[in-house]
Amino acid sequence: MSTVVLAFSGGLDTSWCIPYLRERGYEVITVTVDVGGVEDLSELSKQLGAVAHFTIDAKQIFFDEVLRWLIAGNVTKGGTYPLCVGAERTLQARLVAEKARQLGAVAIAHGCTAAGNDQIRFEVACRCVAPDLILLAPVRDLTPSRAEQVAFLKEKELPVPAHGAEYSVNSGLWGVTIGGAETTGSECTIPEDKWIRTKNAFAKPLPAKTLSIEFRQGIPTAIDGQKSGPVEIIEILDGIAGAYGIGRGIHLGETILGIKGRVAFEAPAAHVLLMAHRELEKLVLTGRQINLKDSLASAYGEMVHSGLLTEPACRDIEAFFASTQARVTGKVKVCLQTGFAFVEGVSSPYSLHAASRAVYGEAVGEWSSEDAKGFARIYGLPSILHARAGGKS
Amino acid sequence: MSTVVLAFSGGLDTSWCIPYLRERGYEVITVTVDVGGVEDLSELSKQLGAVAHFTIDAKQIFFDEVLRWLIAGNVTKGGTYPLCVGAERTLQARLVAEKARQLGAVAIAHGCTAAGNDQIRFEVACRCVAPDLILLAPVRDLTPSRAEQVAFLKEKELPVPAHGAEYSVNSGLWGVTIGGAETTGSECTIPEDKWIRTKNAFAKPLPAKTLSIEFRQGIPTAIDGQKSGPVEIIEILDGIAGAYGIGRGIHLGETILGIKGRVAFEAPAAHVLLMAHRELEKLVLTGRQINLKDSLASAYGEMVHSGLLTEPACRDIEAFFASTQARVTGKVKVCLQTGFAFVEGVSSPYSLHAASRAVYGEAVGEWSSEDAKGFARIYGLPSILHARAGGKS
Amino acid sequence: MSTVVLAFSGGLDTSWCIPYLRERGYEVITVTVDVGGVEDLSELSKQLGAVAHFTIDAKQIFFDEVLRWLIAGNVTKGGTYPLCVGAERTLQARLVAEKARQLGAVAIAHGCTAAGNDQIRFEVACRCVAPDLILLAPVRDLTPSRAEQVAFLKEKELPVPAHGAEYSVNSGLWGVTIGGAETTGSECTIPEDKWIRTKNAFAKPLPAKTLSIEFRQGIPTAIDGQKSGPVEIIEILDGIAGAYGIGRGIHLGETILGIKGRVAFEAPAAHVLLMAHRELEKLVLTGRQINLKDSLASAYGEMVHSGLLTEPACRDIEAFFASTQARVTGKVKVCLQTGFAFVEGVSSPYSLHAASRAVYGEAVGEWSSEDAKGFARIYGLPSILHARAGGKS
Amino acid sequence: MSTVVLAFSGGLDTSWCIPYLRERGYEVITVTVDVGGVEDLSELSKQLGAVAHFTIDAKQIFFDEVLRWLIAGNVTKGGTYPLCVGAERTLQARLVAEKARQLGAVAIAHGCTAAGNDQIRFEVACRCVAPDLILLAPVRDLTPSRAEQVAFLKEKELPVPAHGAEYSVNSGLWGVTIGGAETTGSECTIPEDKWIRTKNAFAKPLPAKTLSIEFRQGIPTAIDGQKSGPVEIIEILDGIAGAYGIGRGIHLGETILGIKGRVAFEAPAAHVLLMAHRELEKLVLTGRQINLKDSLASAYGEMVHSGLLTEPACRDIEAFFASTQARVTGKVKVCLQTGFAFVEGVSSPYSLHAASRAVYGEAVGEWSSEDAKGFARIYGLPSILHARAGGKS
Repeated sequence: MSTVVLAFSGGLDTSWCIPYLRERGYEVITVTVDVGGVEDLSELSKQLGAVAHFTIDAKQIFFDEVLRWLIAGNVTKGGTYPLCVGAERTLQARLVAEKARQLGAVAIAHGCTAAGNDQIRFEVACRCVAPDLILLAPVRDLTPSRAEQVAFLKEKELPVPAHGAEYSVNSGLWGVTIGGAETTGSECTIPEDKWIRTKNAFAKPLPAKTLSIEFRQGIPTAIDGQKSGPVEIIEILDGIAGAYGIGRGIHLGETILGIKGRVAFEAPAAHVLLMAHRELEKLVLTGRQINLKDSLASAYGEMVHSGLLTEPACRDIEAFFASTQARVTGKVKVCLQTGFAFVEGVSSPYSLHAASRAVYGEAVGEWSSEDAKGFARIYGLPSILHARAGGKS
Repeated sequence: MSTVVLAFSGGLDTSWCIPYLRERGYEVITVTVDVGGVEDLSELSKQLGAVAHFTIDAKQIFFDEVLRWLIAGNVTKGGTYPLCVGAERTLQARLVAEKARQLGAVAIAHGCTAAGNDQIRFEVACRCVAPDLILLAPVRDLTPSRAEQVAFLKEKELPVPAHGAEYSVNSGLWGVTIGGAETTGSECTIPEDKWIRTKNAFAKPLPAKTLSIEFRQGIPTAIDGQKSGPVEIIEILDGIAGAYGIGRGIHLGETILGIKGRVAFEAPAAHVLLMAHRELEKLVLTGRQINLKDSLASAYGEMVHSGLLTEPACRDIEAFFASTQARVTGKVKVCLQTGFAFVEGVSSPYSLHAASRAVYGEAVGEWSSEDAKGFARIYGLPSILHARAGGKS
Repeated sequence: MSTVVLAFSGGLDTSWCIPYLRERGYEVITVTVDVGGVEDLSELSKQLGAVAHFTIDAKQIFFDEVLRWLIAGNVTKGGTYPLCVGAERTLQARLVAEKARQLGAVAIAHGCTAAGNDQIRFEVACRCVAPDLILLAPVRDLTPSRAEQVAFLKEKELPVPAHGAEYSVNSGLWGVTIGGAETTGSECTIPEDKWIRTKNAFAKPLPAKTLSIEFRQGIPTAIDGQKSGPVEIIEILDGIAGAYGIGRGIHLGETILGIKGRVAFEAPAAHVLLMAHRELEKLVLTGRQINLKDSLASAYGEMVHSGLLTEPACRDIEAFFASTQARVTGKVKVCLQTGFAFVEGVSSPYSLHAASRAVYGEAVGEWSSEDAKGFARIYGLPSILHARAGGKS
Repeated sequence: MSTVVLAFSGGLDTSWCIPYLRERGYEVITVTVDVGGVEDLSELSKQLGAVAHFTIDAKQIFFDEVLRWLIAGNVTKGGTYPLCVGAERTLQARLVAEKARQLGAVAIAHGCTAAGNDQIRFEVACRCVAPDLILLAPVRDLTPSRAEQVAFLKEKELPVPAHGAEYSVNSGLWGVTIGGAETTGSECTIPEDKWIRTKNAFAKPLPAKTLSIEFRQGIPTAIDGQKSGPVEIIEILDGIAGAYGIGRGIHLGETILGIKGRVAFEAPAAHVLLMAHRELEKLVLTGRQINLKDSLASAYGEMVHSGLLTEPACRDIEAFFASTQARVTGKVKVCLQTGFAFVEGVSSPYSLHAASRAVYGEAVGEWSSEDAKGFARIYGLPSILHARAGGKS
């Protein structure tokens, strides 16, 4: 009997897939890729008829292959959203596909619908990594209704997972997204009690607290002097900053398929880390480095969000990022207050601020009055010539 | 006797310039360009020996020629700083130069030092607008010390303006910048009591408040249904948001002369308006429009900040901005809380979100399962071919 | 009976569509949009069973809506290909759709296959302009083989157009593309005798000839002092430069659907005009204008080539282009020789070269030695600080 | 006695510097950095009073540190000029400065004037590499006239190098630049007999010839199957293509100091190599890789041309380039004809063209009709929604 490996989340869609795929003659193995916050689904998987279940702990890989570059690029979409979900999907698909091949499966299946981005992210990744495997998307292709799925499971006396929740939640290491009635329109935010990681922050405001965050070559290495691996730092910081209600937002943007989509998100750790990292870069990178990096980061974020992490251009941008991060080492002081964080200061052995003998607005140090006069006369010549040739200023 | 027009701020440097320029044989006329928050300096000017003083109310021009484009581009430097100062300088220089020519002056003078950006901004603008006038920068060129300036004024029994304040402040319509001991280093923020527009916000937190802000073609037209001109809206909003402590930050970046500079700023209205405007754009502009606009806005902000508002490329970008803003009309709900603002929702007659029959993640509407399957197969082909040709994904 | 308007080229595919659509119960009206080089197809259309045929002369519209912007942006793909075809398709589709609506048709049909870009260009344009009309693509959807098409036409005793030519040719105002056995691979060019507009140029080399081309606000207005409309100038120049064998190339690039495509092209007029226009811009635009315009032109070319001329971002870029072209007025001397053109010189009333009192490498004029020394000391400071802080240069 | 190391070209300016610097009390050591085409200047140096002369053969370093990246980025300015000179200067300055430090010199001197770019390139590089050494620019700072220089040398009975040539020439591995009366204006090209590497090409046209050029990871490795190092390949190709008159042009652009400059150039090898390399990239890189690389290459070329090769952003871009070049391996067939080159075809083991089962315009292979239909429906949705919301297409 041929084996299919199913990317399994424990929700109604992927639960329905197990008996459905069995009816189609497949032996089903379920795989859950843990990029943060996943529970053990082996029992459920077994009850639903899978022959085996694997949980792949991918948090470290997720950091090493994706998050470190999102930090390096200070990547957000629309100036706010730190790609909580898109960043996960391609990696999950790839690891599922690699597992499938390892297990000698002939097919890979996912439970995405036709309405969202995840189907695209999943399928592009699988076609890159395992083009020889059959790709099955029964929920997308057959569009069973929720009622039909429940009926099908009940008929077979299989467990029916919780479903029909008012708000759909996706939770991972880099943040949570929350969709509900409000986010299907554009005019309202979600109710206060639907937030998850920042739930009680505003009811019980905490006193302001200043944290120090250390980076080495762009990677977070310590909080308040406590050294840890980056995954642990993200987890710790998520707890701390979440309690302050930091990192909430609503993402509104073009989806891969071209319509506008809207979703609430909470990413306390991501918010603070990106803010701190960016400020450190301002200290150690030149203006040209920052401008070029920002422009590449925008392209990178677009690709990661759009399921194109397998694009070779992503590898090229990562090489650029790696080069820039060589000197992004130092310490950032961030003050957390209810609802927001504020960077108080930064220091680094590679500080370009400290390297200068001049002080902006205070002391020249690098040049004389005469030099500045000469500079002022030459700088801006193109505009001056344009004006002289009759152009409008 | 030849006339010089001096850009006059009422501070020690420009006060010293008046008798200095008189000694050099000039008749001095002082001009103050009001782009927000300027007091009447005519008496001081007269006492210091100027033959006339003019205050030019330039707030509306400032909005029409500069701020509307900074809003259109959602322009900030380093992801935070809304160009409070740089945006003012070039315009001020231009208006001073135009006044000088109107008055038949032979020279223009400014009081900038050799240590900062303003000398460059001032001189580039003057050379574009009034290349025939002599450009004098006695403070930059002679580098009189503060003590020497004071002694010179006292010797002549002239008024000595307040000077030597611990913190230097520049206040205008688009925000305040504050420099002091802390900002000459990179590690600390300024003391709580040195903030100006947000001074008491954290001592006396206000209850959360939701505002509606309306835009028409990218220009703010109403707050909470109250229609006003954009200058008035900025002034009102600055008061409201300032009381919430919104819009604080520290800007750290490369100066025009190439060293790193650091300064604290408060821009309550700018912060909220840019946030609201950007969210409205997410609703009515396509992803491609937003990406291209972001990229141009970065170049535009760089030029405005760097004293190159007279670059003809700025006119070209403004034409692009104007085209994009044609449909940036709608209403934004922003919730103000102590220290931060949160956009709750947006609406517009030109909503691309509402124009779609599909709902992201919920309903297809614009395509079928079959279409999505085809799209997924084709989208991403370059990555797939790259992988097939042996490339790393 | 419902009417369908068919975009008609007179080839086998669109000829087959006429009886096919009639069998499906439609009354067929054919429309040919002439963007250069189209013959009268009314007789053929009638013989094949269409009730009416319209030829829309769109050369002037093509220039006004597309080509003027391709010139303004100096747009080529891959540094060589002047978008001979992609530029035509969206406009053709739009004009067909507008005609369809004018005629009260319920449907629009095209004869594109599933293998190329044109289906996408056609359908995106129609869905923007006439979303209410049914969109039919019988050749793409039914994939009739050439033999089946011929058999079908013969069976109905209808004329069978010439077909099965070794090389497929698309000819328009902005150039010709030629595809054949060689271009399905990547290693060879097409045979010498398959070129069309430059066919005899190398067998009978002409003596070198210097032309002057005048532009006004970016639009060509005269050749050798002879004033004409831009369409006529393109036609004249195509003849002249074609006889010199100028403008040949092979385009190799990613298609809309993501595979690589390759095609030979000849665009004598486009080649010379773009070369001349670009040189004139170097004289009258600042470096910053040119850099920004190049970057937008790349995005614009990508969209036009990819069937996204209806993207609103294209309108925004056109506004930018229009602003830059205000001063692109002047004369360019181009020397034509067998196989290539060489720009000898440019002149303009708005010359920034002439506006300067300095001469590069010869005379300072705008600055003194002292100024240059000051400039040299300040310019480059970020690199110097980076090196001082221990960075690698 | 303190030692100064003088960058020595053997021309009048640097010859004058030797006795001038000796009079100022320095012991003068001359250094010539050979990046192509330099003769032995040790005798002249000695006669002029230098205590030692060194020629540094830097052609291989020039390739490894600069030219390989200019090839990787297909870098030209203004679409034509392959940075023949700017690329050399920074490297020359750096090697001179390193030599100076090695020799225990206290100062470095150059002979650049105040009118051009080279002073800036030289000084920025020296300040990065050897900030502790005194930087002398006697020609720039004292502005001796040619007559004064000659008189000074004659008075001291020193040799007077040839000077006052009508055309100033700079010759190196990557090309020649030629300036003269015509290039100080914008309207004319230089006379036919002033060209150097392509001098007789048009008088004695050669028969067309097809070359194969091989690249390995972006670096040229063979011509017509003959393997060589890249420096040798450039030298060989320069001879071959020069004889065909290939690679002539006139560069017109903004100089570092902001005025427009114009210069004729000949770069036969650079022209052909860039053309061949770019075509190979079209075969093996995705469209996204090419677009991003083009955009970085534009910034890189700008920096190299403007004397900012020491900017750390250049190192970051080189890392990006290196990543992209990993698969730029293959063979390009280029046909040389009098005045131009034509790429006939390309092949590579990493061909994305060959990797596809689809043939553009001919066969689908990667997708079905149904897939294409779905893709066409979804692709372009943002434009369609914009139109639906009342926007102009």
